[in-house]
Amino acid sequence: MHDQPVRPTPTRFAFLGPEGTFTEAALHSLGTPSEGGSVPAPSVPAALALVRAGEVDAAVVPLENSVEGSVSPTVDGLAAGEPLLITREVFLEVDFVLGVRPGLAPGEVTRVASHPHALAQTRGWVAEHLPGAEVVAAASTADAARLVAEAAPGAPDAAVCPELAAERYGLHVTARRLADTPGAVTRFVQVERPGRLPAPTGADRTTVTCSVPDRTGALLDLLTVLASRGLNLTRLDSRPTRQRLGVYSFTFDCEGHLADARVGDALVALHRLCDEVRFLGSYPRADGRAAAPVPAPLADGAFGAAQAWVDRLRAGAGG
Amino acid sequence: MHDQPVRPTPTRFAFLGPEGTFTEAALHSLGTPSEGGSVPAPSVPAALALVRAGEVDAAVVPLENSVEGSVSPTVDGLAAGEPLLITREVFLEVDFVLGVRPGLAPGEVTRVASHPHALAQTRGWVAEHLPGAEVVAAASTADAARLVAEAAPGAPDAAVCPELAAERYGLHVTARRLADTPGAVTRFVQVERPGRLPAPTGADRTTVTCSVPDRTGALLDLLTVLASRGLNLTRLDSRPTRQRLGVYSFTFDCEGHLADARVGDALVALHRLCDEVRFLGSYPRADGRAAAPVPAPLADGAFGAAQAWVDRLRAGAGG
Amino acid sequence: MHDQPVRPTPTRFAFLGPEGTFTEAALHSLGTPSEGGSVPAPSVPAALALVRAGEVDAAVVPLENSVEGSVSPTVDGLAAGEPLLITREVFLEVDFVLGVRPGLAPGEVTRVASHPHALAQTRGWVAEHLPGAEVVAAASTADAARLVAEAAPGAPDAAVCPELAAERYGLHVTARRLADTPGAVTRFVQVERPGRLPAPTGADRTTVTCSVPDRTGALLDLLTVLASRGLNLTRLDSRPTRQRLGVYSFTFDCEGHLADARVGDALVALHRLCDEVRFLGSYPRADGRAAAPVPAPLADGAFGAAQAWVDRLRAGAGG
Amino acid sequence: MHDQPVRPTPTRFAFLGPEGTFTEAALHSLGTPSEGGSVPAPSVPAALALVRAGEVDAAVVPLENSVEGSVSPTVDGLAAGEPLLITREVFLEVDFVLGVRPGLAPGEVTRVASHPHALAQTRGWVAEHLPGAEVVAAASTADAARLVAEAAPGAPDAAVCPELAAERYGLHVTARRLADTPGAVTRFVQVERPGRLPAPTGADRTTVTCSVPDRTGALLDLLTVLASRGLNLTRLDSRPTRQRLGVYSFTFDCEGHLADARVGDALVALHRLCDEVRFLGSYPRADGRAAAPVPAPLADGAFGAAQAWVDRLRAGAGG
Repeated sequence: MHDQPVRPTPTRFAFLGPEGTFTEAALHSLGTPSEGGSVPAPSVPAALALVRAGEVDAAVVPLENSVEGSVSPTVDGLAAGEPLLITREVFLEVDFVLGVRPGLAPGEVTRVASHPHALAQTRGWVAEHLPGAEVVAAASTADAARLVAEAAPGAPDAAVCPELAAERYGLHVTARRLADTPGAVTRFVQVERPGRLPAPTGADRTTVTCSVPDRTGALLDLLTVLASRGLNLTRLDSRPTRQRLGVYSFTFDCEGHLADARVGDALVALHRLCDEVRFLGSYPRADGRAAAPVPAPLADGAFGAAQAWVDRLRAGAGG
Repeated sequence: MHDQPVRPTPTRFAFLGPEGTFTEAALHSLGTPSEGGSVPAPSVPAALALVRAGEVDAAVVPLENSVEGSVSPTVDGLAAGEPLLITREVFLEVDFVLGVRPGLAPGEVTRVASHPHALAQTRGWVAEHLPGAEVVAAASTADAARLVAEAAPGAPDAAVCPELAAERYGLHVTARRLADTPGAVTRFVQVERPGRLPAPTGADRTTVTCSVPDRTGALLDLLTVLASRGLNLTRLDSRPTRQRLGVYSFTFDCEGHLADARVGDALVALHRLCDEVRFLGSYPRADGRAAAPVPAPLADGAFGAAQAWVDRLRAGAGG
Repeated sequence: MHDQPVRPTPTRFAFLGPEGTFTEAALHSLGTPSEGGSVPAPSVPAALALVRAGEVDAAVVPLENSVEGSVSPTVDGLAAGEPLLITREVFLEVDFVLGVRPGLAPGEVTRVASHPHALAQTRGWVAEHLPGAEVVAAASTADAARLVAEAAPGAPDAAVCPELAAERYGLHVTARRLADTPGAVTRFVQVERPGRLPAPTGADRTTVTCSVPDRTGALLDLLTVLASRGLNLTRLDSRPTRQRLGVYSFTFDCEGHLADARVGDALVALHRLCDEVRFLGSYPRADGRAAAPVPAPLADGAFGAAQAWVDRLRAGAGG
Repeated sequence: MHDQPVRPTPTRFAFLGPEGTFTEAALHSLGTPSEGGSVPAPSVPAALALVRAGEVDAAVVPLENSVEGSVSPTVDGLAAGEPLLITREVFLEVDFVLGVRPGLAPGEVTRVASHPHALAQTRGWVAEHLPGAEVVAAASTADAARLVAEAAPGAPDAAVCPELAAERYGLHVTARRLADTPGAVTRFVQVERPGRLPAPTGADRTTVTCSVPDRTGALLDLLTVLASRGLNLTRLDSRPTRQRLGVYSFTFDCEGHLADARVGDALVALHRLCDEVRFLGSYPRADGRAAAPVPAPLADGAFGAAQAWVDRLRAGAGG
């Protein structure tokens, strides 16, 4: 089953740039020597495109945030286009500082910039502490800091950004821990081209995206497929299929590895039931939660014994 | 899958005797030349034992009656002992006559005999028309007729039996259509030793017996396995497992043939979930009800395509 | 809910006779003074008819046996006719002796009689020890003993019966513990006319009979109704509806009391889903198995709070 | 059930401003005379706050878009804070034009502004036609047009906005139908303070938000509650609960009206099963899709008859 060549460890990386974002910090936390270099990409689709084109071995992009939920460009970018595989995940606690242009008092801030997700997570703080400031969306939190530093005409004069970005661009940190919900965590994933899957570890996660027919109970059927194999969902994201309101696709993470018999069995059932289904990877869990033990009827051995029994029956053996 | 030798048509039969019972009529209705002879067996277990011992090719026994339900000795006899396979089924409308010893007026009947199932099906008629008569259980309806004819001391003087049996033993038929519920039908099955299964016809039935763990929802899980493969139940029989009250085994018939992918998939799941499971055969339906068309996601092709997809994914292909 | 007059303790009983059967022993084990007398009835329907007619306060009849399963005449007798209620249950270990006509050696037995259920449970013993004997069905085990004692021409000369019956009729007990499966238990129920239900005890059982529409998944829906209220099945009996093969009715016991909110909620759902449904009683469990604790979302308080919330919403309150 | 005073038609409105947005167009399409005036609010939370404070009778806000899915500030704003009720819905096809500052050629555009949702829906067009332009997030599509018109230093010089906004601010429309997915539809809702619900029409929708316990199968249980009452989901939105990754709340729309027995029954069950549940309204569907007929077992009459039966049983009636 696994006789394809061993997947080489990636050495050339793209990440959601620019430099100084949480995504770069996530890349560093992977502990992989980026001997081949690491490239900031201007957007998630751009980072994924670099992988698809073979210009890098892997991209690191955010997939999910404990406050805002799934990161749509990543979900959409993995669901369409040439297939890619998630091969690792990493969790990072994220929080924000206010980086102000040096020489400016906090009360003088009139335009504050950040990435929309960061703005969403600091909505309350900004409304309270910068009530009159114009809020400007930037391509990334680090880009917001860069804009503040560059001080072009009309540029923002403060950024909601990681401390790393404020430091890198020489901004003055006037406030910390801006997040309305402290303790927010973002989950980043390493994405590669298809090939040999990471080896099962016993505490793995599998990610799948699929669209279900527009009929009563289709989502219920999908969840029953997973539940009847004891596969707990750890994320469920519903997205419109861009066809019409009321027709949704689903992306989910569940326990287990494609090499597990019960996961393979569930995917066979999903392939039959779904209009479309795409496997996005099986990889070790990094959230430190112990995997639930696999009940005996769902272990690989139970599947193997059951299939062997049916094969014998079909060959004419009794009982 | 089917390269085992072709199953020869049986020529030597056992049937639940004695001669003159509905079971013999069922055997005749199969239209198989009994060139090797047909042997009346004194009981269902005895008939099955003749098959297991190889003394006959097949046994014909009753499995289910539209009034009384499953025939316990058949269900129990197939569930235990050396494995056997049901290879055909036949339906027979059954009704009863009152066969009285010649020379006796109906009003003079004091002891009436029949098989307990027949007595159960004519309980109302007997209570109304023979209110004072002693009711005696016989080993079969035909045996009841024989006892009446032999007129031993203490023998019954009337039998509730098939018209065939009354004729064969020279009894006087004083009443017909004794069944409290007219139109009763009995389903008989032909049972053989394991070997090549009857070829799928597109309108087949599969019989399985299993016992489920003593936990909440175990039967629900079993039924969900079948329903999620679109396999309608056509019979469900629950029997105590002879261990203690509250622990049951189940025998059921469902649509489909073991050669169908969805039936095989269901059996794999049942093997994992059940404490014990025994396959009792796949064979053509004889009840004249059209099989429901198989929905596209449950067709053999859908299973094959889904399994091929998972195999490709495991080999490292994308998506 | 319970302002109907208190149900008086029954004092006049019918039981499945004749005297000396296990059913009489079950009646005695209830510990109720039968001040009004106890009447042996010739059959289960006859015993139930005495209750319906008001000639006795209650009947004691067998409902279920750990070897043979549900007792059909009781299941059928409760499912049709004027409604009755099960108000108590009692379990009795049953076993059989061979009662031989005094003066006869065991080897001289040529006809052995018993109730068909008893014959079924001693099939193996009789086949082994009385291989040549004619087996005769009697209306009851005690009746078999009576026939042996009366010694009419053609009468049986041995009975498979309770030891009590052998003693009462002066038979010679030549063998004990005849049951093929030792430790068999029969469950008897006390049946009364409708009226105030027995008070909930926290370890109760509820019995219901219903028929489901002839469509895919109907039984699955029925079981889902129970499972979603955490109501474990302790017995499930499927019986043909006497209409045609493949259409079944179900009688089941589950945990809980009609006074429990979750049981009432389940019955509301069953009434909607089933073609017919009949409530056969809620009464204390007598099997010594502790009732599982009711999960918080299924407790009476959770139902009350939820209904009050919906009532407030319908009245125009927010949230 | 509905004896609370009749809900007066709202006359004072807030809408997600500024003037010229699709939301204002949605308000107009309601056809309600805004005799009391209509107030643009700077954000969805601000619009909802005006309703809660009683300064307007109702707010019109976007809830769902056929391309981007649920509108988070609306979902979050309804799920927390003082309870509000959705009382109407309206669908509007949305598309965008490029409004350029007069005097500028399309090729001279260097900064293009719009609301992040609009930018997401025109990502492809902007990347293709304005590849070098900086993309700036504005508080609304109309605000983007205003910024372009005001031409402050550093201001954007083109806006992706509704044609209405381009006209209102005197921009030059250089391109139309910018949406990457043509035919996008946004669903807007009218939100009021609690009070009498809109009368059932037979084609209604009900909106609920709830959070489920962090255990296997909790979402499956939730969907089973709806499916077993025949309540089709028309939208399902999963959102992190802001506690930790993997714990989600769900907001959904389903068929039916709170006044329907089956909807009330489902809400009773959800209240028991969910950690939290909030009813967000029942109101007429405006999508022109016919409501599926209610199956007989789910009609109000079936619930009423079933409850009356259980009530009679509890009072001591038979059967």
